[in-house]
Amino acid sequence: MQKIDQYLEENAQRFTDELLEFLRIPSISADSQYNDDVKKAANFVVSQFSQAGFESETIETPGHPIVFASRAEIEGAPTVLVYGHYDVQPADPLDEWKTPPFEPTIRGEHVFARGATDDKGQMLTHIKSVEAWEKVHGNLPVNVKFLIEGEEEVGSKNLETFIEQNKEKLDCDIAVISDTSQYAPEIPAITYALRGITACELTVKGPSQDLHSGVFGGSIANPVNALARMVAALQDENGRIQIPGFYDDVVALSEKEREAMAALPFDEANYLSNLGVSATFGEEGFTTLERRWARPTCDVNGIVGGYTGEGPKTIVPSWATVKISCRLVPNQNPEKISASLESFMKSKLSPGLEMEFVNYHGAPGLVFDFNSPSMEAAKAAIEKSFGKAPVMIREGGSIPVVGTFQQLLGVETLLLGWGQNTDNLHSPNEHFNLKDFQRGIRASAYLWKFLAEM
Amino acid sequence: MQKIDQYLEENAQRFTDELLEFLRIPSISADSQYNDDVKKAANFVVSQFSQAGFESETIETPGHPIVFASRAEIEGAPTVLVYGHYDVQPADPLDEWKTPPFEPTIRGEHVFARGATDDKGQMLTHIKSVEAWEKVHGNLPVNVKFLIEGEEEVGSKNLETFIEQNKEKLDCDIAVISDTSQYAPEIPAITYALRGITACELTVKGPSQDLHSGVFGGSIANPVNALARMVAALQDENGRIQIPGFYDDVVALSEKEREAMAALPFDEANYLSNLGVSATFGEEGFTTLERRWARPTCDVNGIVGGYTGEGPKTIVPSWATVKISCRLVPNQNPEKISASLESFMKSKLSPGLEMEFVNYHGAPGLVFDFNSPSMEAAKAAIEKSFGKAPVMIREGGSIPVVGTFQQLLGVETLLLGWGQNTDNLHSPNEHFNLKDFQRGIRASAYLWKFLAEM
Repeated sequence: MQKIDQYLEENAQRFTDELLEFLRIPSISADSQYNDDVKKAANFVVSQFSQAGFESETIETPGHPIVFASRAEIEGAPTVLVYGHYDVQPADPLDEWKTPPFEPTIRGEHVFARGATDDKGQMLTHIKSVEAWEKVHGNLPVNVKFLIEGEEEVGSKNLETFIEQNKEKLDCDIAVISDTSQYAPEIPAITYALRGITACELTVKGPSQDLHSGVFGGSIANPVNALARMVAALQDENGRIQIPGFYDDVVALSEKEREAMAALPFDEANYLSNLGVSATFGEEGFTTLERRWARPTCDVNGIVGGYTGEGPKTIVPSWATVKISCRLVPNQNPEKISASLESFMKSKLSPGLEMEFVNYHGAPGLVFDFNSPSMEAAKAAIEKSFGKAPVMIREGGSIPVVGTFQQLLGVETLLLGWGQNTDNLHSPNEHFNLKDFQRGIRASAYLWKFLAEM
Repeated sequence: MQKIDQYLEENAQRFTDELLEFLRIPSISADSQYNDDVKKAANFVVSQFSQAGFESETIETPGHPIVFASRAEIEGAPTVLVYGHYDVQPADPLDEWKTPPFEPTIRGEHVFARGATDDKGQMLTHIKSVEAWEKVHGNLPVNVKFLIEGEEEVGSKNLETFIEQNKEKLDCDIAVISDTSQYAPEIPAITYALRGITACELTVKGPSQDLHSGVFGGSIANPVNALARMVAALQDENGRIQIPGFYDDVVALSEKEREAMAALPFDEANYLSNLGVSATFGEEGFTTLERRWARPTCDVNGIVGGYTGEGPKTIVPSWATVKISCRLVPNQNPEKISASLESFMKSKLSPGLEMEFVNYHGAPGLVFDFNSPSMEAAKAAIEKSFGKAPVMIREGGSIPVVGTFQQLLGVETLLLGWGQNTDNLHSPNEHFNLKDFQRGIRASAYLWKFLAEM
């Protein structure tokens, strides 16, 4: 590994230069004006693979292309599938950027540009690490395959179909994704659990048109008042969700996990002031980190009904709609929760009203054994590169592709984040610490070694 | 009165022709494109007064003019103030009209045109009745003053100021308004009570921006869920309002009134099918008519918060707003109720959130003694003309000018409706029964006589 380390050191500046080149391509997948740039970014990725000695192909989809890369197979070695994406979020509001989003600028330790962390910078670490192995040793200790898509920021519309149709090509023992964050600066982390989700839209229908609240008010159920009663019934005053059976399949956190979470530095006052609220609120009996990472929720995402313009308008609205999503923890079944939510809400409907319910796509929560051999390999690789062992964290959101890998390829995913939560992902002035970029490359290089040794 | 009856009969066709002429003027007060037509309608009213032998003046306001008319005073006779309006609602959606809104068309007993009932046709009955008295007897048995405005459909913005500044000019013993409805075809009615109102807008503020519901959900109060709990707390499951002190000043309906209401024909199945709902819902222990006319309400008029576009978006919204209005019954104080509502809602606020409250203009409910001498005079006049005594009804809405008359002029108002609830007021194909137009004129003519005899 000494030679690898040396190669990484000698080529560090070039790696940064290549990242800047990558960041100059405005590969905004959501905006068709940038279709050519998205293609250009795919081509850049292809050229990176050539440079690393990997064979790659650009696979067209109804949307933006997928880049797949691999090298000649080493018999008997484990196979790793690296996932990443080369597309980026739109850059607006443009006037809030201190330097233009596609003119990467280094200030202090950071490079500022759209896509710096999410995901160009993080993804590139794995390409540079395989390049190092190839250049230094002419081979790798494990088989590495790359699946790099261009539609992550628009919902990965064509990815699942591709995986479904290419299970053999993508066959592997473990997946690796660097599209999450460290726990905090100088506190590297591995994410070992994700919450799932079930989302729905529910409409309460009353009179066939808005009615004069003076002439008719008081004699029929008001759809908005009725919907408010239904939504209010979802939780008790202690934040406990009241949907029948909601907690039945929830696996309690082990004391060991709770202790580990409690040991993480967490400044609640700072957390609240960043969010702009004066107090926490959530399920009684759990800490803020537990509530965010390991307990299910039931949040309204939006509501609308009746008159919402300026000033008063005295009507009984004809209808009201609410969007609700539940974050789920591992072992809860999205379909079962959605069905229970629907019938619970229906049971709370006021007389004379009707209810329509649309179930959106759901995804189960995921939790991986954080003492598995591959997890231990990742811990060791990070410790080697970052100088300290990573903390093990959960993530409150979902990363759908991780569920897809588990479902279709039968593999777990190592979620190794080199970025920070504070890197302004999806916001103006996105940035990435170039020290973490180099440390990510080195951790990745060691990961191949330790995975080979498991 | 025989000569009066004869005059009315002989001139009935001309009265109708003049109504049609009036209806041809598109005096839409809300749309400045029609400003000239609004003026034309005011001039038409002035010409009607000249024809009736009344002196009138057109009083300019910052908006549309007010027409005031009166005749030389008869010493010792009571004074009646007739209020009406010559402006009309916009006519759209135009393509739903069977015949153009400003080309009045007679089909069967009805004339179809915007303003036919509201309020050109109803208002004109009183001008034609004074004309009859003037032409037949050269005088009237009572002093009649007219206050005809051109801004009723845009909130009577300049009327209150005018009344305040002209109390002496408007000095009277009783007011008369024909801008309500009969109870049903062939069931003439006098409205003796109106509900009041207090309206507000309330905003619950949470995080300074919408948050990712995966990353943050479960750890802070969601403004929409919180607002739903607050709104749900407004009523119990029996529709009883829970705002402290809400019912304290409510005067219970007398048994006599309840019996009178119960005696009115009311087809609940038909009522529901017209509204498009399958069941009634309201305060337990009261009939539908009681709930609409004589019990206070608390209705949400509109609500909005978070994402309301297509599909899911998994956020914890930053804020949520609701518009609430309470219909009040006589003796409830709008300011007191509004203040109690505000502090009740504040007491239900979830931790960490803030609340903003805007109180809109309120108006108290009104109830008039339905056995007063002027009420008896009106009953007799209606019975004479319609061939049957009117039923005494309440109205669930508010007519602000009635409160203004009581407050500023110290008089009660006779609400004598010649129209029907089903005349499509404010909707396409507004119409007015010409038989009721003629009966209205005759009832008005008799009203002057019976008021003189009180």
